[in-house]
Amino acid sequence: MEIELITIGDEVLTGHVLNTNTFFISQELTKLGYRVVRHVTFPDERTEMRRGIKEALARGSIVITTGGLGPTVDDLTRGVVCEIFNCDLHFDETIAEDLKKRFGDLSISLEDQATVPDQAEVFLNRVGTAPALIFEKRLILLPGVPNEMRTFFKEDILPYLKTHYPPPRQEEERELHFCQLSESLLDPHLRRLHEEFPDVHVGIYPTPGTNTVRVKGPNPLHVQRFEEALVNAFPTHLLPWPRPEAALHDFFISKKLTLAVAESCTGGQIAEKITAQSGASVYFLGSVVAYANQTKRDLLGVSEKTLEEKGAVSGEVVLEMLAGLFRVTGADYGIAVSGIAGPLGGTPEKPVGTVWAAIGRKGEAPDVWTYCVTLNREGNMLLATTRILSALYRKVAYGVKGGR
Amino acid sequence: MEIELITIGDEVLTGHVLNTNTFFISQELTKLGYRVVRHVTFPDERTEMRRGIKEALARGSIVITTGGLGPTVDDLTRGVVCEIFNCDLHFDETIAEDLKKRFGDLSISLEDQATVPDQAEVFLNRVGTAPALIFEKRLILLPGVPNEMRTFFKEDILPYLKTHYPPPRQEEERELHFCQLSESLLDPHLRRLHEEFPDVHVGIYPTPGTNTVRVKGPNPLHVQRFEEALVNAFPTHLLPWPRPEAALHDFFISKKLTLAVAESCTGGQIAEKITAQSGASVYFLGSVVAYANQTKRDLLGVSEKTLEEKGAVSGEVVLEMLAGLFRVTGADYGIAVSGIAGPLGGTPEKPVGTVWAAIGRKGEAPDVWTYCVTLNREGNMLLATTRILSALYRKVAYGVKGGR
Repeated sequence: MEIELITIGDEVLTGHVLNTNTFFISQELTKLGYRVVRHVTFPDERTEMRRGIKEALARGSIVITTGGLGPTVDDLTRGVVCEIFNCDLHFDETIAEDLKKRFGDLSISLEDQATVPDQAEVFLNRVGTAPALIFEKRLILLPGVPNEMRTFFKEDILPYLKTHYPPPRQEEERELHFCQLSESLLDPHLRRLHEEFPDVHVGIYPTPGTNTVRVKGPNPLHVQRFEEALVNAFPTHLLPWPRPEAALHDFFISKKLTLAVAESCTGGQIAEKITAQSGASVYFLGSVVAYANQTKRDLLGVSEKTLEEKGAVSGEVVLEMLAGLFRVTGADYGIAVSGIAGPLGGTPEKPVGTVWAAIGRKGEAPDVWTYCVTLNREGNMLLATTRILSALYRKVAYGVKGGR
Repeated sequence: MEIELITIGDEVLTGHVLNTNTFFISQELTKLGYRVVRHVTFPDERTEMRRGIKEALARGSIVITTGGLGPTVDDLTRGVVCEIFNCDLHFDETIAEDLKKRFGDLSISLEDQATVPDQAEVFLNRVGTAPALIFEKRLILLPGVPNEMRTFFKEDILPYLKTHYPPPRQEEERELHFCQLSESLLDPHLRRLHEEFPDVHVGIYPTPGTNTVRVKGPNPLHVQRFEEALVNAFPTHLLPWPRPEAALHDFFISKKLTLAVAESCTGGQIAEKITAQSGASVYFLGSVVAYANQTKRDLLGVSEKTLEEKGAVSGEVVLEMLAGLFRVTGADYGIAVSGIAGPLGGTPEKPVGTVWAAIGRKGEAPDVWTYCVTLNREGNMLLATTRILSALYRKVAYGVKGGR
C-alpha cells in the first residue's frame, strides 16, 4: 500500500515554518514498513487543494493531510474534502461536550470545531480542538500543529492503519557508516554488488567526511551478503555510528581514557561535537581553541621561531601544539589541527583548504599529515572536524595511521 | 511568476532526512517577493520524477529541483531531464579542469560530474562536485547537499532569477532583532501597535535567546512608525544582526580590540559561533574549553580550593576562570561560563540548567550573574552561548551590566 502525504499551509510555502510534520510521519511509517511515495505541500487555496487531493486518491494511495482544520478563515481542508465526497456537515454533541469540558465555552470555535462531515470517522483531539477525520478508510485529515498531529498519529492513526492495512512483511535493511572513504571509491563496489544482487536496493547518503550506505531487499541472505562484501572491502573505514565523535565517545568511556584537543582552524567545533554528547565529561578534558598565534604560543608553548619559520599551518606547529597539549592537560590521547578555512588567508604555497593535523597517544610518536580540499568556510571547518575525529577513531579501533 | 520546488530523494520520503532545502529556498524567494506555490518530493525513481517535472513545467511554473545530481547509481535527475528535453550529454572540459584543480584525479566521479546536457546552462560547484544546470531559463537543477545547494542558490540562482524574472514590487518590510527579551514582554507591545496600525502585518520568529520581529505593510510610513515605537520600547535589547556574535564581530573589528573565551558547559560552542565568521582572526584570540575541573585548574589557574568549596558551577569559579583567561591571553575583553547542560549532573541546589556567567574588560571589575532555564541539553548549550554573547554586546554597545 502506497501512502502520500499532503501538507496544507501558506506558512510552509513561504518558508516561515519548517515542515517537520512530513518528516515525523514518514519516519514513523517507514519504521513499520509502509512506503511513502510522495510529499506535496499546497497553499491555503481551494482549487489546488481539491485537485491535489483528488489526484492522490485517484492514484490509489492512502492520503494523509496535515493542516487547515482549525476554526479560522484560512482553514479550508474540511470544506474542500466535503466537496470532493459530496458530503454534508453536522453538529456533533460528543465533540462539543469534550471541548466544553476541556476548554470551557469557546463560542464560535466550539461550534466550528464540533461540526463534522457526515461520512467521516471522527477522532477526538486530546491536545487542541480540531478532531481528526477519516474518509472511506483512506483519506486521513490531521491538524497541522505538530504536537496535536503527533499525538493523533501515534495514538489513533497508526493503530488504525495497522488494523486496516497490516504493514507488509518488512524487508531486511542494514546501514553501514564509512569515514575517510570517498563516494568515488565506494561507488564501483556498489555497482558491482548491485549487479550481483539486483534485488537489493542501495542508497548512499554523503555528509562532509562520511558516507552512509543503506541496503535493503526482500531476501535477507542477499542483503547480508551485500553487506558483508562491503564491510570486507573497507573494513577499517567502518564507523559503528553515523558520526565519528559518537564512536570515540563509546571508545573513551569503555577504555577509561581521556582526550584533549588543540584546535585552530576548526575554531572550537571539535570540542562542540564531542560535548554535544551527554556524558562526555567522563573522558573529555577540554580544548584549547588557539585561534591566534599568540594563543598557540602562550597556552600551548608553540615556539615563536617555529611559527615564524614554518607558519601557523605546518606540520611542525601542529606537532608542537600536540606536545604542548599533552604537557598542559596530561590527556591520554590528543588531537591538534591548524589550517586555512578561508575564504581569506590563502597563499600560493598554502592555499585555502590546507590543513595540517596531528593525533597521538601521550608518550608515543604522533601521526602527522596534511591535505587540501576546498569547500567553503563552513564546509572546510566541518570537514576538518570530521576527518580528524575519524582519523583518531580509525587509529584506536583499527590501528590505522592518521591520514591514511 | 509562480515557482514550484521539487525534492528528489528516497531519504526524504523515508524520514531519514529532514527537508531543510525547501525551507531555505522558500524563505529566500519569499523575502524577495516571489511566490512559491507548491513543494513536491519524489522518490529516486524515473517514471514518477519525469511525470512530476513535466506536469510542473506544463503548469507554467519556474521549477527548482534539488537532489539526484551526484555521480552514484541512485542519482537520476540529470538523465530524466535529458529525456524530457530530448537532449544529449557532452563532456565539459571547463568543469573537468575545475574538478581536477580542486579535488585531484577522481576517475569515475570526475568523468560523470563533468558530463552535462547540451541544452543546459552550467554553473560550477564551488563546494562539492555536481554542477547546477538550468534548462530553458525555467527548470533549475541543484544538488541536494544543503551546503552546496545554499551556495548555488545565493550566489548563482537568485541573481539569475532577479535578471530574468525581476521580483514584483515589494511591500515595505523591516526586521528587528532583539536579545535577552522574552516573547511575553514583546507581545503586548505588538498587539497594541497592531491595533494602532491594522495595515501592518507582524510576525515573531523566536530562537533560543533571540526574537526577530518582522513588520510589513503597504504604507511605508505606518511600517516605519511601528518600527520606531518598538525600538523605543526596548532600545538596549536591539541587535544589528540576527545573532549577537555578528554584532560583536563588527564591534571588535571596528574598535581594534581583542576577545578571548573560557567556556565549560558551552563546550566550545561560543568559539565555534565566533569563528564561523570569516575575519574573526583579527580580534579573536581563542577559547579555553575547560570542560574538566583539572583543565580549569591547569589552564586557567582556578584554585582547587574554590572548585571544592564552591563547585565548578559557581560565581567564584567563573570569576577565577575570567581572571585566569586575562592572565594567560592578555585579551581586552573576556567571557567565562560554567553550567549544567544536563540531562545528568543536576543537584537539588544546582539543578540542570543552572548557569554562572562572567564578562568584563581587562583591568575593570567584571559583571557576574546566574540564571536557570531548562530546555534540553542542546537547547541549554545554545541558550547559554546566545545569552552570554548577547550580554557582552549589550555591555559594549549600550553600557548594560551583564545579566540585566
